[in-house]
Amino acid sequence: MKKVGIVVGSESDWPKINGVAKALAEFEIEYEVRVMSAHRTPHLVEEYAKTAESREIGVVIAAAGGAAHLAGVIASHTVLPVIGIPVSTDMAGGLDSLLSMVQMPGDIPVAVVGTNGGGPRNAGLLAVQILAVAEPELRKKYHLFKQKLVEKVIAKNEKLQNSLAD
Amino acid sequence: MKKVGIVVGSESDWPKINGVAKALAEFEIEYEVRVMSAHRTPHLVEEYAKTAESREIGVVIAAAGGAAHLAGVIASHTVLPVIGIPVSTDMAGGLDSLLSMVQMPGDIPVAVVGTNGGGPRNAGLLAVQILAVAEPELRKKYHLFKQKLVEKVIAKNEKLQNSLAD
Amino acid sequence: MKKVGIVVGSESDWPKINGVAKALAEFEIEYEVRVMSAHRTPHLVEEYAKTAESREIGVVIAAAGGAAHLAGVIASHTVLPVIGIPVSTDMAGGLDSLLSMVQMPGDIPVAVVGTNGGGPRNAGLLAVQILAVAEPELRKKYHLFKQKLVEKVIAKNEKLQNSLAD
Amino acid sequence: MKKVGIVVGSESDWPKINGVAKALAEFEIEYEVRVMSAHRTPHLVEEYAKTAESREIGVVIAAAGGAAHLAGVIASHTVLPVIGIPVSTDMAGGLDSLLSMVQMPGDIPVAVVGTNGGGPRNAGLLAVQILAVAEPELRKKYHLFKQKLVEKVIAKNEKLQNSLAD
Amino acid sequence: MKKVGIVVGSESDWPKINGVAKALAEFEIEYEVRVMSAHRTPHLVEEYAKTAESREIGVVIAAAGGAAHLAGVIASHTVLPVIGIPVSTDMAGGLDSLLSMVQMPGDIPVAVVGTNGGGPRNAGLLAVQILAVAEPELRKKYHLFKQKLVEKVIAKNEKLQNSLAD
Amino acid sequence: MKKVGIVVGSESDWPKINGVAKALAEFEIEYEVRVMSAHRTPHLVEEYAKTAESREIGVVIAAAGGAAHLAGVIASHTVLPVIGIPVSTDMAGGLDSLLSMVQMPGDIPVAVVGTNGGGPRNAGLLAVQILAVAEPELRKKYHLFKQKLVEKVIAKNEKLQNSLAD
Amino acid sequence: MKKVGIVVGSESDWPKINGVAKALAEFEIEYEVRVMSAHRTPHLVEEYAKTAESREIGVVIAAAGGAAHLAGVIASHTVLPVIGIPVSTDMAGGLDSLLSMVQMPGDIPVAVVGTNGGGPRNAGLLAVQILAVAEPELRKKYHLFKQKLVEKVIAKNEKLQNSLAD
Amino acid sequence: MKKVGIVVGSESDWPKINGVAKALAEFEIEYEVRVMSAHRTPHLVEEYAKTAESREIGVVIAAAGGAAHLAGVIASHTVLPVIGIPVSTDMAGGLDSLLSMVQMPGDIPVAVVGTNGGGPRNAGLLAVQILAVAEPELRKKYHLFKQKLVEKVIAKNEKLQNSLAD
Repeated sequence: MKKVGIVVGSESDWPKINGVAKALAEFEIEYEVRVMSAHRTPHLVEEYAKTAESREIGVVIAAAGGAAHLAGVIASHTVLPVIGIPVSTDMAGGLDSLLSMVQMPGDIPVAVVGTNGGGPRNAGLLAVQILAVAEPELRKKYHLFKQKLVEKVIAKNEKLQNSLAD
Repeated sequence: MKKVGIVVGSESDWPKINGVAKALAEFEIEYEVRVMSAHRTPHLVEEYAKTAESREIGVVIAAAGGAAHLAGVIASHTVLPVIGIPVSTDMAGGLDSLLSMVQMPGDIPVAVVGTNGGGPRNAGLLAVQILAVAEPELRKKYHLFKQKLVEKVIAKNEKLQNSLAD
Repeated sequence: MKKVGIVVGSESDWPKINGVAKALAEFEIEYEVRVMSAHRTPHLVEEYAKTAESREIGVVIAAAGGAAHLAGVIASHTVLPVIGIPVSTDMAGGLDSLLSMVQMPGDIPVAVVGTNGGGPRNAGLLAVQILAVAEPELRKKYHLFKQKLVEKVIAKNEKLQNSLAD
Repeated sequence: MKKVGIVVGSESDWPKINGVAKALAEFEIEYEVRVMSAHRTPHLVEEYAKTAESREIGVVIAAAGGAAHLAGVIASHTVLPVIGIPVSTDMAGGLDSLLSMVQMPGDIPVAVVGTNGGGPRNAGLLAVQILAVAEPELRKKYHLFKQKLVEKVIAKNEKLQNSLAD
Repeated sequence: MKKVGIVVGSESDWPKINGVAKALAEFEIEYEVRVMSAHRTPHLVEEYAKTAESREIGVVIAAAGGAAHLAGVIASHTVLPVIGIPVSTDMAGGLDSLLSMVQMPGDIPVAVVGTNGGGPRNAGLLAVQILAVAEPELRKKYHLFKQKLVEKVIAKNEKLQNSLAD
Repeated sequence: MKKVGIVVGSESDWPKINGVAKALAEFEIEYEVRVMSAHRTPHLVEEYAKTAESREIGVVIAAAGGAAHLAGVIASHTVLPVIGIPVSTDMAGGLDSLLSMVQMPGDIPVAVVGTNGGGPRNAGLLAVQILAVAEPELRKKYHLFKQKLVEKVIAKNEKLQNSLAD
Repeated sequence: MKKVGIVVGSESDWPKINGVAKALAEFEIEYEVRVMSAHRTPHLVEEYAKTAESREIGVVIAAAGGAAHLAGVIASHTVLPVIGIPVSTDMAGGLDSLLSMVQMPGDIPVAVVGTNGGGPRNAGLLAVQILAVAEPELRKKYHLFKQKLVEKVIAKNEKLQNSLAD
Repeated sequence: MKKVGIVVGSESDWPKINGVAKALAEFEIEYEVRVMSAHRTPHLVEEYAKTAESREIGVVIAAAGGAAHLAGVIASHTVLPVIGIPVSTDMAGGLDSLLSMVQMPGDIPVAVVGTNGGGPRNAGLLAVQILAVAEPELRKKYHLFKQKLVEKVIAKNEKLQNSLAD
């Protein structure tokens, strides 16, 4: 199974997005984390992106805020799918980060997830889904995961019913 | 090689996003196109999403505008990666479509691309990249594709230089 | 008199919107509350929506945030009027929730109220108004309710006059 | 069966929203249309709103753009449910109209639909759903209407399949 | 000299906008304050607006948030100039309040000031300027006021220079 | 009776806002029009603003788009009330013009009207209302004007009724 | 005197921003134009940026739309000042381009001008001002240029006065 | 070497933007700081802007919020490059400040940086880059500065690796 590469533009972004890692761990997917800046360390980002394929990385996840170019810069240097997490800011709750990531020009896709709390978790799960396209066993696990989601919601509903009945 | 499933919320969306199909054709990826409405035909969407995996679909691409729920509804019924194309509207150029797709709750990822002209093309290319994760030959093709992008830009630059020199 | 069905996308939304329940209680309208997720538990939502009519529900109220599809999904499975409460988020104060709910495609209406503190209360009152269309006694109660609003504002004004006079 | 009252802020808004009338006609619901301005003719609006109930109106639909107060003013003078259609403008595609209608203070609900082409149609359909709460025959008609939506989408899909097969 | 009428939609808005009163007091302009709701107490608002002229009010200032119709409703019932203060909300910092007030239809003007801390003060000062149009003595005072603004800024600059020199 | 000074930032703005002049002409208020740029000709603007009072101008109306500073610059150089018309642009329909005008700092008010077609007309009417504060005859005219608004709306409604009856 | 380097992300952007070139020509500043894509041709952009200084370029101007990373990528590879022109798009008139350029992280500045018609001209003039910091003769020319702006506005005002007098 | 002039609209803005001064100090660039208000003290601003050139100022940096005209007013009175820092506000995180600064009309450029924490630092660095255009030694320093950015990011990455390894 290939690994997932996670890149954050600033080390202060890591706690905001470590839901990525938790999601990957639930599926026992290996990952690595790097702090790299699209603008301050363009060569590190380029080298990372270019060597990712040969280092058995299957998907790259990049998180950044503001003029969030990190995912786009990585996408320009690799053929691997790149998932972008727009880290929220004070500008309308991250509208700047979202638009900087999602409005990519034709030919260079970035797969963008939400800025909210669920965004990082979804980035991790999307990476799992991508790796699972060619891994029937992983897809099976994902089916089980989706069944558990149902059970969790049912449990939450019961808890609410009980609290309302009190 | 797996196929790509393309779903549009309205048949009038198809001409707006057929850049998806062109991108897939460039990589000789098979695809199918369906008109289905998340709200008018929820059962068709559910059945489509649930059977996609067994019909050898690897990635689903869904395009919709406004309260664009189509990609999210498909994502709730499949373990395959789902790519969302927010079709632009009059509401600030598609801000409604974008936010309806990208701000998904945790546990149900949608991979969103841009609303602009490049968005559909990027949806197609992202699907190629996802299928290529486990297909070294397809990744090779993608490397060639990226090289040609460079040549095209160089040609465009030369054309501009010539027109400026006139 | 028919009942009102209230559905929240997450149990953490319930305290934010329980003004719905208070409004219904003021008019002695029966209601039930459910936690259900449009994306994690689509079948529960579908079953709930489909059986609502036969269980003597007259109006369904759905609250959700972000890519807030819950109201739309319910609306696709019932002929009852569905009221949507866009739960506010960090994205410009809930602009994402609002646009995800209100920009529904033709044929599948959702009746949307505000994201602010008054929104949930208004969702409850709107449900009362809807039930009252065929219930002259309930409309009478609502006329009294509107008269009391006037008295409350007059009292508040007097309180301010007194505090300014001090 | 009660009637539906339709009020437009300007006669130029009527062609933009006459999808309301078409939707009501499909269900053989009677309606009346009035041009009235919340700001220029507040007394006409008040009188209209106050007498609506006694004239056997069950639901009022109000359409306006910009600082779109019409629905709110009507809601302040009646106990009937009021549906607001935010007519789109140049300000971000009608964001002004939408926010002026939907962010109502607590105690005075307005049921808001979308600004897009589907909004007026949905206003009409929502009015039908509201009238149908106490009219089992009308709900039966609405079930048939929803079935026909499925057939229409299937036909559109077939048309697209044929055009793609050519 | 005429008086200024100040109307707030909710008594909780008064502390947010009492900069209005301070500004009027600096120019010894008399004012009165009322809590009135455009939607809950339309008749009180109408009566207030209609009698303002005869009660020697020269300018009305109205403050409200969300679907902020108060200033517009007052403007529809008086020939006096009406100043609107959009009280800020969570929706993008009061974008809803601002657009609900400022995008008035032709024929019914509202003079809108900012949502920020300076807005209420400016509403008061604008009322002073309006009353001063026909009052040369008040204009003289206003010239002095503007000179003092210069002195205050100079003092603030000196304070900063001193703190930087430390 | 005092005059109204109208200043436009660019001569191309004049046709967009000449509803100002029409409104003033309806009330037989004299006005003058100037093209002046806050940024290109700051001294002309300053001189104009400073001498306005002595030239028997009672109100200044300034129209500008984009980073629309014209009204603010005039306000900084006069004690007269300044009305700002935000000329709409491509940026979300003039959101830039609106925010540049309306979010003035405390101490320097600008009275802002809407960006839409009605905005310029309302700027003219607001100037009339301001001049009328000390002119009972002008207020009487304004009462008549408001009555005629009612008649016009009634006529429009009749026209619509006739067209619907056909 | 140093030259100005102009880079456009797409050759279709050139006609939209050639006001840059006109402004530079007015001051007889030499310039070169290149088509280069931050994402498709990152190496060309890098090489261009890195060699700009040694090729006697003093300022780089970059124009791009959408997820407009071009200026930022250039800024990451040069110590020269980089001016960004956000090319307007359908997304709220270029809000995406603006926010993608202007919200740069600390350490990597980009000097952003407006998206409107004046933006490209201002990019050119800003480059002139930057080059003029160390060139007293060029500053003299700029003083003359500013005087002519005054004359042009005066001429436009006279033209309007004449047309109004007709 | 020329100096940098820093102007803040309010002394409360100084702590928010003193990253400007830190950046200049890192490059041993002299600067002066002034509190001045575009609207309250237009003559001080004009005099400051007009004399800047003769006082050996090379670049002016202006910070303001809301209807942030300060940079534009300075730009109208000098031929020096003017950098604008839009101080963030509650209105969508400073969207008002940003649009008031960046959408300048043609002929009067302002170089705008971001509203976020990095914006002030970038304003300082941009001033350094501008002064360095004609100062090879300063450009050398800037090359070193950029190398150190790389080292800092590498150190941050190592720190994260260590914390993850724990």
